[in-house]
Amino acid sequence: MLIYASQLNPTIGNLSHNTGKILNAIEKARLEKAEIVVFPESAISGYPPEDLLLYDDFIDQMQTELDKIIEASKDLFIVVGTIRRNKEKKGNPLFNSAAVIYDKKLLGYKDKSLLPTYDVFVEKRYFEPGADQKAFDFKGKKIGVLICEDVWSHSENVYKKYEKDPVEEMKKLKPDLLINIAASPYCYQKKDLRVEVFSKVSKILACPQVMCNQVGANDQLVFDGYSMYFNKEGSVVNVAKGFVEDHLLIDTEKEAPLFSYKVDPLQDLYSALILGVKDYFRKLHLSKALIGLSGGIDSALVLCIAVDALGPHNVLALNMPSRFSSVSSFEDANFLAANLRVELMDIPIDHMYQQYLDLLSPVFQGKSFDTTEENLQARIRGMILMAISNKLEYIVLSTGNKSEMAMGYVTLYGDMCGGLGVLNDVTKTLVYELAKWINRKKEIIPNNTIKKDPSAELKADQKDQDTLPPYSIVDKVIDGYVEDHLSYDEIVKKYKIDKILVKELIERIHKAEYKRRQGPPGIRVSKKAFSKGRFFPIVQAWIP
Amino acid sequence: MLIYASQLNPTIGNLSHNTGKILNAIEKARLEKAEIVVFPESAISGYPPEDLLLYDDFIDQMQTELDKIIEASKDLFIVVGTIRRNKEKKGNPLFNSAAVIYDKKLLGYKDKSLLPTYDVFVEKRYFEPGADQKAFDFKGKKIGVLICEDVWSHSENVYKKYEKDPVEEMKKLKPDLLINIAASPYCYQKKDLRVEVFSKVSKILACPQVMCNQVGANDQLVFDGYSMYFNKEGSVVNVAKGFVEDHLLIDTEKEAPLFSYKVDPLQDLYSALILGVKDYFRKLHLSKALIGLSGGIDSALVLCIAVDALGPHNVLALNMPSRFSSVSSFEDANFLAANLRVELMDIPIDHMYQQYLDLLSPVFQGKSFDTTEENLQARIRGMILMAISNKLEYIVLSTGNKSEMAMGYVTLYGDMCGGLGVLNDVTKTLVYELAKWINRKKEIIPNNTIKKDPSAELKADQKDQDTLPPYSIVDKVIDGYVEDHLSYDEIVKKYKIDKILVKELIERIHKAEYKRRQGPPGIRVSKKAFSKGRFFPIVQAWIP
Repeated sequence: MLIYASQLNPTIGNLSHNTGKILNAIEKARLEKAEIVVFPESAISGYPPEDLLLYDDFIDQMQTELDKIIEASKDLFIVVGTIRRNKEKKGNPLFNSAAVIYDKKLLGYKDKSLLPTYDVFVEKRYFEPGADQKAFDFKGKKIGVLICEDVWSHSENVYKKYEKDPVEEMKKLKPDLLINIAASPYCYQKKDLRVEVFSKVSKILACPQVMCNQVGANDQLVFDGYSMYFNKEGSVVNVAKGFVEDHLLIDTEKEAPLFSYKVDPLQDLYSALILGVKDYFRKLHLSKALIGLSGGIDSALVLCIAVDALGPHNVLALNMPSRFSSVSSFEDANFLAANLRVELMDIPIDHMYQQYLDLLSPVFQGKSFDTTEENLQARIRGMILMAISNKLEYIVLSTGNKSEMAMGYVTLYGDMCGGLGVLNDVTKTLVYELAKWINRKKEIIPNNTIKKDPSAELKADQKDQDTLPPYSIVDKVIDGYVEDHLSYDEIVKKYKIDKILVKELIERIHKAEYKRRQGPPGIRVSKKAFSKGRFFPIVQAWIP
Repeated sequence: MLIYASQLNPTIGNLSHNTGKILNAIEKARLEKAEIVVFPESAISGYPPEDLLLYDDFIDQMQTELDKIIEASKDLFIVVGTIRRNKEKKGNPLFNSAAVIYDKKLLGYKDKSLLPTYDVFVEKRYFEPGADQKAFDFKGKKIGVLICEDVWSHSENVYKKYEKDPVEEMKKLKPDLLINIAASPYCYQKKDLRVEVFSKVSKILACPQVMCNQVGANDQLVFDGYSMYFNKEGSVVNVAKGFVEDHLLIDTEKEAPLFSYKVDPLQDLYSALILGVKDYFRKLHLSKALIGLSGGIDSALVLCIAVDALGPHNVLALNMPSRFSSVSSFEDANFLAANLRVELMDIPIDHMYQQYLDLLSPVFQGKSFDTTEENLQARIRGMILMAISNKLEYIVLSTGNKSEMAMGYVTLYGDMCGGLGVLNDVTKTLVYELAKWINRKKEIIPNNTIKKDPSAELKADQKDQDTLPPYSIVDKVIDGYVEDHLSYDEIVKKYKIDKILVKELIERIHKAEYKRRQGPPGIRVSKKAFSKGRFFPIVQAWIP
């Protein structure tokens, strides 16, 4: 059998547009003489549609779009992700489903059985779990259909321990082929785990498996694509491209050579960030980005990402020196902008800063310099960025990294201004690794930017490490506490960090929650981002 | 039997402090000769503890605190809300439980069966549902225990249609008394519904019922208390106070007169907002609030709330006129501050505004006045508020209302600055009603503030209604679209608003999502707030 797995990039809520892409792909598949066409989970709505699902209009329109797909399915067997009503009077009102279609007829639905409700997922808010597993007859073969999480219970690498295991249930149906439609988001170094899980499923079912994944960035989540075909021994035979729309054309009868399959984790991370920026702009019909370029490493990295996502002509950099800015920072900013062929505008803020000091001096009488004055500078910069954004229709990209966000080493309404926090979920450690990776062939980011001690340059001779422990330590506590939810003792033991310091850092992470809550949305690339999939109270008193 | 229902105000995560309050109440109950002592749902942790539940340390410490309560229970029957581990290897790792204790022994746990996962609730993220209903023997009586949502499936006024109905299951156990421990958040005009639901439960079980509710504000949610005692006919016999810690002392043997029970919805709403502000400050060990007082109705209302929550000596008002501010606004601000005995500071921003215009004129050449210049003024005010906040340790209270937040008629990083958005969830219609309610006896808020057309005063002769339809229409679309999730046709039909206008307003609500995402947390007082319990994508294209 010839299978065409279409790895599409839907826009959330753009139902007719997404369906147009599906119809297009069906025609391409037809030209390729495919017999089976597969689309990702929630291909009609885009994933995750969130509370759009609470509107009847939205559900109705999905049904209308599905009818168009059924109409276009002459002679083809199609599996496409949609969302449909639960017509029972009890339980949640919707199913997260795969519509299974053949030759202009709906054969039936397979409803997702395991509904992830952890981390970034809240599926039990909307969906009722599907009760049964299903295999559909097509040309004498049994085609089993599962949806994303359905196969994860089976693995030992589970995120959640579920009551049921759809793979074991599917085994009883003895499928000849398994189709898994997915919307599985990227996170750093996750792909190996994914291969392991799917491979195990093919082995258990002793049948080949097509996993068709969504690609594209949708509101903080990046779907990496990398749709896969496994043979019945569980080996990877073919993999679609990562981070772009692509398709797999699979002949189940032909012995294909195994896919030699390697990925550079940093390249993937960089691609995820580019796609995060690109789709944010494209899907909102925006084009131009504005970045405050300080000469430091974070804004340098964001500039590289923005240029790769939008093109240099769509990016404007703004250097805004104050009395505390060094000459070398200015030079580094200029060097980088020139390297990337980005326009660099120069708006010194020192006069404005002095105006604020003068205006506030009656109120601040007798008080010495503190973070107030540092924040003033960051906020003047934020105001200028936002004014240019408003007047000239640029979107400000904010440049704070995950380590700074964790520590609260950022200024609310200052450097936190922006439509998208490109590095919100990238630790300082990874910022350095990415910068070096970008420079692997030639010096794009000035070596001086990478080598010098990090500094916010908001007061004289300031260094980040004046008030923070080394980022290598901060990032370990982020790993242990935020991403892995380790206990206090486990963190101390695993990373061999001083007990008191661990407690201080956890307390700082807690205390900065109020800032993060007002930060721009980020691009989720780690196991646990601050901006999506973490529900943490601001008003709370616990410390381990 | 004598029952002491202790309506406590826990702080999320302050486990030993909350337990201290519980132990204190136990001693008071003992002095009153109570035999049964009841505490709210999640009394040890405070509700909702959110992702603190993902830490083993947190769960362990709750167990330690529970042991202290068991130790203090000599001769008493105690029901207290806690969270405990699910020791099965499958399913979610925790139960949301009532620990049932007698005479220094743990009799057992009743685990919450219905786990709300909608609106502000995400219980299926953490908890496994309890399988069985339980009644505990005490002095020859059977005491049934349920937890909050457990009784809501039974009502016809359900939020969700559940598969099971714990009340029907409980009926088979024939309890002599039902204890319901709750953490039921306030929302405007909800209380009558609550009485209806609980009353029905008592009637069905034909037994009296104690509902012990949490009180206090915890991270956006306000719990109103109003714990209740119903007789077996389902009539309200006694009600604890709203919005303060209180207790009910109930003698189940005595015929008590029925409680004549009336509530002023506006008074309740005002109390909820006061408690929201008060607990935000108290629980974070803060005391002083700073408010930009424009002379408009929103900031006037916030000033009243802040004064009632924190006392006039803890509140500082700041008037920051620009060239577009009217004299009457200045007079109104002064009149109100004097009425409330609040210090009013005056910092004109016009010079600073001109500085920005000058600084940006080379970049803005040839462009005419637009929202950029309006935003500049709002952001200068935001910066001044934040600078004083930083230097003098005030928390800025932001004053935007729900209608403005819906329409995006607010400036990000400008008037949206603040630790708490006091009116985030109060429509302009309700802002007026509350202002008139405050003035019911004497003119506290200047009548001129209430009467004049609303204006942001960010350009010459500006009125809100230059760019917005009347707030009465905006607020209807908020009711229908945001709060009730009505379909487009239903909204048009129900409110008789022009079709095109409804669509425009819904589109404006969608488009302002990116601003709201970066707004301060609010105090949730409606059925559906923007800031809590609504998951809506920023990058999406749907319009009904």
